[in-house]
Amino acid sequence: MADEENAYSFTTAATRHITLANLPQGGMPMWRGGRLPEVTLAYECWGELSAAADNAVLIFTGLSPSAHAASSPQDQTPGWWEYMIGPGKAIDTDRFFVVCANSLGGCYGSTGPVSINPETGQSYGADFPDVTVEDIASSGYYLMRELGVEKIHAAVGSSMGGMSSIAYAMQYPGKIDFLVSISAATRALPLTIALRSLQREIIRSDPAWNGGHYTDDTRPVSGMTLARKLGLVSYRAADEWNSKFDRSRLPPENLTGKRFEREFEIENYLEYNAQKFVASFDPNSYLYLSRAMDWFDIAEHGGTVSEGMSKLDVNKALVVGVTTDILFPSRQQREIADVMRSTGTEVDYVEIDSVNGHDAFLIDDQHFSPVVKKFLDESVA
Amino acid sequence: MADEENAYSFTTAATRHITLANLPQGGMPMWRGGRLPEVTLAYECWGELSAAADNAVLIFTGLSPSAHAASSPQDQTPGWWEYMIGPGKAIDTDRFFVVCANSLGGCYGSTGPVSINPETGQSYGADFPDVTVEDIASSGYYLMRELGVEKIHAAVGSSMGGMSSIAYAMQYPGKIDFLVSISAATRALPLTIALRSLQREIIRSDPAWNGGHYTDDTRPVSGMTLARKLGLVSYRAADEWNSKFDRSRLPPENLTGKRFEREFEIENYLEYNAQKFVASFDPNSYLYLSRAMDWFDIAEHGGTVSEGMSKLDVNKALVVGVTTDILFPSRQQREIADVMRSTGTEVDYVEIDSVNGHDAFLIDDQHFSPVVKKFLDESVA
Repeated sequence: MADEENAYSFTTAATRHITLANLPQGGMPMWRGGRLPEVTLAYECWGELSAAADNAVLIFTGLSPSAHAASSPQDQTPGWWEYMIGPGKAIDTDRFFVVCANSLGGCYGSTGPVSINPETGQSYGADFPDVTVEDIASSGYYLMRELGVEKIHAAVGSSMGGMSSIAYAMQYPGKIDFLVSISAATRALPLTIALRSLQREIIRSDPAWNGGHYTDDTRPVSGMTLARKLGLVSYRAADEWNSKFDRSRLPPENLTGKRFEREFEIENYLEYNAQKFVASFDPNSYLYLSRAMDWFDIAEHGGTVSEGMSKLDVNKALVVGVTTDILFPSRQQREIADVMRSTGTEVDYVEIDSVNGHDAFLIDDQHFSPVVKKFLDESVA
Repeated sequence: MADEENAYSFTTAATRHITLANLPQGGMPMWRGGRLPEVTLAYECWGELSAAADNAVLIFTGLSPSAHAASSPQDQTPGWWEYMIGPGKAIDTDRFFVVCANSLGGCYGSTGPVSINPETGQSYGADFPDVTVEDIASSGYYLMRELGVEKIHAAVGSSMGGMSSIAYAMQYPGKIDFLVSISAATRALPLTIALRSLQREIIRSDPAWNGGHYTDDTRPVSGMTLARKLGLVSYRAADEWNSKFDRSRLPPENLTGKRFEREFEIENYLEYNAQKFVASFDPNSYLYLSRAMDWFDIAEHGGTVSEGMSKLDVNKALVVGVTTDILFPSRQQREIADVMRSTGTEVDYVEIDSVNGHDAFLIDDQHFSPVVKKFLDESVA
């Protein structure tokens, strides 16, 4: 695959690539128009599909993760949701056949802007068609059918992945039994649109972005670093940083002495984490997936949020919010639960009092594992 | 004055310039080292100084305002705090002699990075010495003495200006009777440091910044625009934008059709307001004053916040917080009030339930005027 040759493929011994063979004639139609003639998804899986093919759990990721959600015998490095997925864990791989794909539009092996357009032989770059949450959900649907699953037992997603889980259930009623949405939204609101739009504009303002046409060697590193720092600020919570960093200064030997340069530990934390991310993430993928979240609006499925949500046909949903999340505030999680209930879906709503803000689902094993475990255990009881 | 010749002077018929003649030998010593051989302050004033010189109210501004806080016969354009200052208003110019200066380090006529260094004949640029909140307070002290006021009746400040008011009272005990601090902080915490540091890094990353050496024609406009947008995001509140913008789109005729460009009204709002600001504000001033807020820490005045605050010697303080402020959250306002009380200062604490976030003091006449009016009326009762 062309995808395996780019700088970001992050493929490991556990990563499988599948070129979807069951797409409609002419390729995958995109929600906002356009068409992808060929779609490859990088995915990993854990556990065994049952003979009845009725135990599949599909994980939808946030903006940045790869398919490597958990370790496996083929790749023992911890995945991005290691605490959640495994034998006996909340998403129990002794019981479920668990699948996680890198998002369509991503840069870790799935078809996205860094992929080669088979019709031109060149990377798509900024000529990739618009990507929406609906498209990410659809690619997951095609993937599961390729894997022999007609109806998934559950979709589980956090942040953008929570939106994707809901989109899956809206678009494929009757093809999913249980739904888990963590720190997502029925529709993007102005503050989050503003924060994401600004990240995108920072990347686009870096002359190296060059309208989306750059090479591995000429990527807009400065813009990506600044954009990621803004992302990081929005992902965490004020109190967590107060107790972690307070007003700690860098040790004197790490100060450059130059005016305006890093002086506080919090500034160093942002620099370190942004650099780590920027080294492996494609700027165009960031732009496409970030914009996908702005566009998401359940009301586009029928005229109102209630009309859209009424398309759901699941046995039960779990909706989880975090008290300290400023990007997808718990108010928006309660709204998801309320609309689901008012449109006939049975819902467990749990608000977690975690210090970790929007990123809590990635970190806060202690609070999240029992909530997800209880829901999935009951789903097969 | 050299200051009157630069692009940002914003001097009007009401703006006066005073070159401080009462500085210590050799110029104004700066809190973090360095010295300004000459300090000019641009200020406006309203009302009449009493014969006993006991009715002066000194307004300290946030990062960006000019001295034009209110209209006057000399300049009838509304000032940035028009609703608050005037005959019969909360800060009653029939009763008080009200003074507002552009901050030291600012770009609206007071000595700052755009000013000419008398020792070199060139603009200071990024060679201006470090500016702190303490220095801004000191320059206010020197100004009031030039104007014949030994002891001010009150200092009133919001945001950075609230910090400056507290710094004035700490640095000049016995030289102030009443203190008003609105949406300020005892010390900058990591989230606000992160947000400001990122704004500064965005400016510094614009190649046009050029290490702080640029001309009016080569200013880092792109970096300033992006930085200001981030500032704007932090100044307002999510719910205000939800009701104002929701998911409104630009009219089709205003769309470029280019991928990733502005599409939502909230994106347009940020663009319009950032452009308006950037046209008149000096990037280096932004860097200096932004950093000043990071550095502010009352604990530097004696070892702990309590030790610092115990230096206050005022009759009474008013501390005001806003429920929706994410930059200087109401929790930090309660802390100011609590520490003042525990160190022997009488305090009125008021938490205002405004939708306008950190910017509420600039906008929310209805909530703010009665609170400030009551306090100042009682101060002369």
